[in-house]
Amino acid sequence: MLCAYRTGMRAVRLHEIDRERGPQNFRVEQVDDPAPGPGETLVKIARAAFNRRDVFISQGLYPGIQLPCIPGSDGLGTVAAHGEGAQGPAVGTRVVIDPTLGWGPDQRIWLRTAQVIGMPHQGTFAEYIAVPSGNVHPAPASLTDDEAAAIPLAGVTAYRALVSRGGCTKDDVVLIPGVGSGVQTFVLLFAKKIGAKVIVTSSSDVKLERAKSMGADVAINYKTSEKWEKDVQAVDGGPSLVVDSAGGDTFFKAVNVTRYGGRVVVYGGTLGDAKLRPFSLFWKQLDIMGSSMGSPRDFAEMLAQFDGSIKPAVDKVYAMDEVVAAAEAVDKGAKFGKVLLAIT
Amino acid sequence: MLCAYRTGMRAVRLHEIDRERGPQNFRVEQVDDPAPGPGETLVKIARAAFNRRDVFISQGLYPGIQLPCIPGSDGLGTVAAHGEGAQGPAVGTRVVIDPTLGWGPDQRIWLRTAQVIGMPHQGTFAEYIAVPSGNVHPAPASLTDDEAAAIPLAGVTAYRALVSRGGCTKDDVVLIPGVGSGVQTFVLLFAKKIGAKVIVTSSSDVKLERAKSMGADVAINYKTSEKWEKDVQAVDGGPSLVVDSAGGDTFFKAVNVTRYGGRVVVYGGTLGDAKLRPFSLFWKQLDIMGSSMGSPRDFAEMLAQFDGSIKPAVDKVYAMDEVVAAAEAVDKGAKFGKVLLAIT
Repeated sequence: MLCAYRTGMRAVRLHEIDRERGPQNFRVEQVDDPAPGPGETLVKIARAAFNRRDVFISQGLYPGIQLPCIPGSDGLGTVAAHGEGAQGPAVGTRVVIDPTLGWGPDQRIWLRTAQVIGMPHQGTFAEYIAVPSGNVHPAPASLTDDEAAAIPLAGVTAYRALVSRGGCTKDDVVLIPGVGSGVQTFVLLFAKKIGAKVIVTSSSDVKLERAKSMGADVAINYKTSEKWEKDVQAVDGGPSLVVDSAGGDTFFKAVNVTRYGGRVVVYGGTLGDAKLRPFSLFWKQLDIMGSSMGSPRDFAEMLAQFDGSIKPAVDKVYAMDEVVAAAEAVDKGAKFGKVLLAIT
Repeated sequence: MLCAYRTGMRAVRLHEIDRERGPQNFRVEQVDDPAPGPGETLVKIARAAFNRRDVFISQGLYPGIQLPCIPGSDGLGTVAAHGEGAQGPAVGTRVVIDPTLGWGPDQRIWLRTAQVIGMPHQGTFAEYIAVPSGNVHPAPASLTDDEAAAIPLAGVTAYRALVSRGGCTKDDVVLIPGVGSGVQTFVLLFAKKIGAKVIVTSSSDVKLERAKSMGADVAINYKTSEKWEKDVQAVDGGPSLVVDSAGGDTFFKAVNVTRYGGRVVVYGGTLGDAKLRPFSLFWKQLDIMGSSMGSPRDFAEMLAQFDGSIKPAVDKVYAMDEVVAAAEAVDKGAKFGKVLLAIT
């Protein structure tokens, strides 16, 4: 066992959480190495990626928080060792980690006992992590370490929302409100790979330009265009598929602009409760679908998309000791694509 | 042609509409007979049924009202004649009429040009009606005239919502809020025929008893039970499928009580706008589906359910000259099942 002759590892930990200080609660510390249990694979992490979930935990805005914890759901690294009976990729293989533990047998819905790694299960903001071998997948050969590390939670969330739940095809016109977030950049990537027409919105012209460089067909600034709903509906009669993580007024307007027979997939609600007009829903015979994370099948299908034709959007790589600055960048949302941590 | 030696027919007409007087605007008058055009079948109506839509039209609460009009979407009668090239059931056959005109080829969504008979197309509150032959179906042999007349619009709306959209199976626990309406009684009928477990709610113990006599497994009075949501969730962990026509607070609570991975189908919104909490939607990975009327395939599949094992709920049969009283009964909702008109 690798762990036998090591003396510990560096890891980001949270000992306290509060709404105000939030990201400032992250600290880099020396902790004990994990040891791979039966059926587990030990991965030496090289890059981790931030998700909004990590920031929510630091702010106390997540259910069932256990402290201290090592956050982080996304990791890229190399296989360091296998526990008893583990059947993961060979030691030394470059891998990414499926962040969902114990999804269960039903593609439609996770077990109530399912978890995302990074609290309470140890996360990827550490030099080593032990996870079930089935969660360890060879990293796409076409991608750099940074690009591959950006994928896991955002990629699977986007893929499930857009494809497994939304059923996106090349004939769809897809609306992506608020294109800057990590997940929404993956929605854009996958929608363009499928061949759909994509409309993106943002309050930032910089983000809209980035989205256009990634293939967005129509980019609309909802701050400077007073009637962005009309602009959206002017594109082929409006979207047939919306992928939304805002809720609130954005969701209400998204339902209004969606075409007859269209679908609206929701995987988040940063703006909170939304108004729903029953008439819009039943008269246009819409489908409104909730989506969270993804099943092991979703993850494998998602990873297979990275066949050399597409690359994840990476905003910036921070050193491990800059974890507070990285978390603040995620919190403020002034970014495009994923925020990474170099684990050393 | 039958029409050649007739001198006219009795029909219910609306010349004026207003919010206040609503149902009092219906009048019985002598009007010209319709003549079946090419591809049309003329039906002599014996029984018509009321839908809320007819009352909404009388109150001016429907888009694109054209006056004067003969309302009525549901009719049972006998084939009187065929227009040129029409291929309907033989003259004399007892038939019901599919109320949807021009649905189009897509099962998922109607054409924007689709209509429901009974404004602007002449409705069934008249001695004769000419409709496309494809809309004329032999009435189920096991049903009386009253029972068969109760079926069309409410039956197809219920069937599409529960089965075509909701995908109801015998393994579902179906919640039917507000079980008294015509459509909801059909949802109950079909759900029990499929073998699902059914929970109904109402503010009326009389309606709850009627629903139990039709097979409802659990009946909850939401006025007298302070925590009806908890009562509903106590049944096998809550509904896997909800069929709602209320919207408003009922919809919000229905989403709250729905099981992980469940579906909520909405075909109406009598209580108006609803609040939707994104977290409930995405965390439980719900499907919320809008449904309206039904396609020709929905109608044919629905009609085939009446194989002798189930019977529609009929509230009362009114004489044609009692049309105002019938409309007022529909408006007040103090009924269980369909309100019929005997056409003479």
